[in-house]
Amino acid sequence: MDSNGTSFLDKVLNLVKEDRSESVPLIRFKHPKELEAILDLDVTKGVSDKELEQCVRQVLQYSVKTHKATFRNQLFCGTDPYGLAGAWITEACNTSQYTFEVGPVFTLIELKLLNHILKLFGIPHGDGIFSPGGSISILYGLVAARYKKFPEIKAKGMRNLPEMVIFTSEDSHYSIKKAAHWLGFGTDSIRIIPTNAAGQILVHKLDEAIQVEKDLGRCPVFVNGMAGTTVLGAIDDLDAVADVCKKHGVWMHVDACWGGSLMLSPKYKTKLKGIERANSISWNPHKMAGAPLQCSVFLVRDKGLLHEANSAAAQYLFQEDKFYDVSYDTGDKSVQCGRKIDAFKLWMMWKARGDLGLSLLADQTMATAQFCLEAVAKRPGFKLVVNELQCPNVCFWYIPSFMRGQDMDGQWWEIMHKITPKIKELLTLSSQLMVSYSPVRQYKNFFRFAFTFHPTVDEDQVLRMLQSIEDCGETVTLDMVS
Amino acid sequence: MDSNGTSFLDKVLNLVKEDRSESVPLIRFKHPKELEAILDLDVTKGVSDKELEQCVRQVLQYSVKTHKATFRNQLFCGTDPYGLAGAWITEACNTSQYTFEVGPVFTLIELKLLNHILKLFGIPHGDGIFSPGGSISILYGLVAARYKKFPEIKAKGMRNLPEMVIFTSEDSHYSIKKAAHWLGFGTDSIRIIPTNAAGQILVHKLDEAIQVEKDLGRCPVFVNGMAGTTVLGAIDDLDAVADVCKKHGVWMHVDACWGGSLMLSPKYKTKLKGIERANSISWNPHKMAGAPLQCSVFLVRDKGLLHEANSAAAQYLFQEDKFYDVSYDTGDKSVQCGRKIDAFKLWMMWKARGDLGLSLLADQTMATAQFCLEAVAKRPGFKLVVNELQCPNVCFWYIPSFMRGQDMDGQWWEIMHKITPKIKELLTLSSQLMVSYSPVRQYKNFFRFAFTFHPTVDEDQVLRMLQSIEDCGETVTLDMVS
Repeated sequence: MDSNGTSFLDKVLNLVKEDRSESVPLIRFKHPKELEAILDLDVTKGVSDKELEQCVRQVLQYSVKTHKATFRNQLFCGTDPYGLAGAWITEACNTSQYTFEVGPVFTLIELKLLNHILKLFGIPHGDGIFSPGGSISILYGLVAARYKKFPEIKAKGMRNLPEMVIFTSEDSHYSIKKAAHWLGFGTDSIRIIPTNAAGQILVHKLDEAIQVEKDLGRCPVFVNGMAGTTVLGAIDDLDAVADVCKKHGVWMHVDACWGGSLMLSPKYKTKLKGIERANSISWNPHKMAGAPLQCSVFLVRDKGLLHEANSAAAQYLFQEDKFYDVSYDTGDKSVQCGRKIDAFKLWMMWKARGDLGLSLLADQTMATAQFCLEAVAKRPGFKLVVNELQCPNVCFWYIPSFMRGQDMDGQWWEIMHKITPKIKELLTLSSQLMVSYSPVRQYKNFFRFAFTFHPTVDEDQVLRMLQSIEDCGETVTLDMVS
Repeated sequence: MDSNGTSFLDKVLNLVKEDRSESVPLIRFKHPKELEAILDLDVTKGVSDKELEQCVRQVLQYSVKTHKATFRNQLFCGTDPYGLAGAWITEACNTSQYTFEVGPVFTLIELKLLNHILKLFGIPHGDGIFSPGGSISILYGLVAARYKKFPEIKAKGMRNLPEMVIFTSEDSHYSIKKAAHWLGFGTDSIRIIPTNAAGQILVHKLDEAIQVEKDLGRCPVFVNGMAGTTVLGAIDDLDAVADVCKKHGVWMHVDACWGGSLMLSPKYKTKLKGIERANSISWNPHKMAGAPLQCSVFLVRDKGLLHEANSAAAQYLFQEDKFYDVSYDTGDKSVQCGRKIDAFKLWMMWKARGDLGLSLLADQTMATAQFCLEAVAKRPGFKLVVNELQCPNVCFWYIPSFMRGQDMDGQWWEIMHKITPKIKELLTLSSQLMVSYSPVRQYKNFFRFAFTFHPTVDEDQVLRMLQSIEDCGETVTLDMVS
């Protein structure tokens, strides 16, 4: 390799470009053991640049093309090209987001962008931080809520505090369970509030549950409202949730990791009305908006709280005797020390497109989802789980011909529960489509299409994807799922 | 922008290449307010590709060149070019490290690499995970230790558990304080064990402290041994620490975030003898070894523990009815849901260089540090803080001529405490050198050179950096620091 590796980088980038051509399949599925046998992953001995190039070729060959419209497997798909440019620059600059001196521009960019986002979410005087994902953001939320209520937690820990209780909806993300364990609340401290059929929290049940805990002498400390549940894309009635939180004096967090991108659209942000009353919010631009992973924002209404709760004042890093204004050293707000620059890629996307450009992408995403919802509704053999669009999630079953016209009893649904994964398998193996499936509450395994800002999916593509499901679905037999 | 953004990416990459030329200064320092006035960071309105290119130019212009040898400001410097290629491919592939289906190759690479690393660290039957930094890794360590001792923590939380105590050295990293707060132990649960002058934990004091807590009926749960303290680079006597942990039945963690890279060298790994007896280890290849940030490994001896402690079995992601071997879906070991692919860049570095190539880089780094140590020792006006090399940290004061030949009393040291930051300021403003400084215990502000695998720093460069310090140091006057 030449001294700064430029020519090797050029070669690798050419491979990446080739990998993006239309003709490359979505996935060349191999089972784990098969793939292990194909790839030479051992690193004990070094290889030449030429051999390494060959390795990269193989890595790309068997990697999933998440940039294709037929990748509907997760809550991300495609990448904003400006975001990708930003990510590459970030990697090349290789610095850390803790002090102004080692990331002067990136520090200002994070501050500026956070202020823009805070305004967008209706808490202009708040504070924020980029975190390594939504699960870490909910940790930030719980830590902030707990510290606000019991600042002695920082020194004294959980042992001498009252018993705290956390409230979240049945359809909310599992990360709150992991957070409750890690932070020492324990998962038993979570009260799961039921939802309606569409996945929205039953606010009167929330109200009752908080009252019950208060009556029992426990301390309700955190309500987790949802703006876009993972599977159904449900958005809670956030204004009503805020009323309940206000009534009981409980911290309101909104998990807008998925649905927060709708705030970019003046047309659809009304769906999240009430979010501006939250104490804290998490939003993952790396989901719907197409920022490269990881790009996750945690926002908090109370300006000094992040610093107060999380600071440890390390003398070797956050020296008070520096020659510049150290209020720009924001790293002590974080639970991390070294922190990846996650703001810059989002800034690039935003700078290139502006508020208007991003809002058009959001609107287009919702329009595509609406088209898909209607197409599914009227297509024989397809059955929607929820009839109305909240976030751009369209959830449905495909009922093969041999299953139609029967009683939809328990036994019938057990078969459907197996048919959905079987269809997914066939779609994957034939590289036609990667699609997520899941059960939710009483609903047996169904498909979820979650639409994102990239790539633009036109109506023909939507119909072709449904056709793929139908084609594979019709090859499923009862034997296959017995 | 063209449909897949290729031409814009090409332009941006050319700017990145230009930015790496020798003639580009280390830093063009501007104070925060000055820089804010120069940059147009507002994102409200979108800009053309041409204008965005101009923005990128500015971003690069005012960003610190962390790839230059004169960047001695942190525990990272330079980037392995293969690592950078890996990082760029990762960004382009944009997927998440949770299920085999969306990252088949990356899943196998993470497994293979972790196994290789586990062998290297002497715990071949253990388990591991890539985390977003050393601070998150210590959270993993504490969570694992606590869960192993009290599995009921997961459901029941901290309230009904015995009072737990954590032990760490005076010179250890501040992240353990943040972790103790977050996880609900509270910082009061930390016992700070004194060190010797070189920064190594006093093992008999550790032994005594554990015994005291036991006698008081408290539960010692975690000992944090250091393999490379942040400032002095001290490596604890890990074998002796392991003996104490064994004697008392306490979990032994080794924070090898900095020093762990010495394990790559057969010559220097003996410095970490005893690490193979640890219950858990954290190592950041993004520090000394030059992997692009973030690249952080957490290792644990007990194979099933990560999964057992952290799993939440989300039905929408870790379905048990998938058509492939779901034991390859490793995401439920993590506290994160979406998780950035941090293994691939390290794999690229390792595949290109092999064990031997990496060991040579480690040896060269230590040789450079040794040369620097000796140069500082014999150079007039320079004074070492610690005379022996542990990790490749060289810590020293520069004593300007006007301060020499005086009593080194309290007042004299107070002036030295101000001189060091002043010299740093002058070095930064003149773009000659960015160097870290810090006080540690009784030692007043001193400089730290921490050497890394990249870029190779030759003896002339070391001498020139010392010369820069001397030159700037000689322009400091008593007035400037009064």
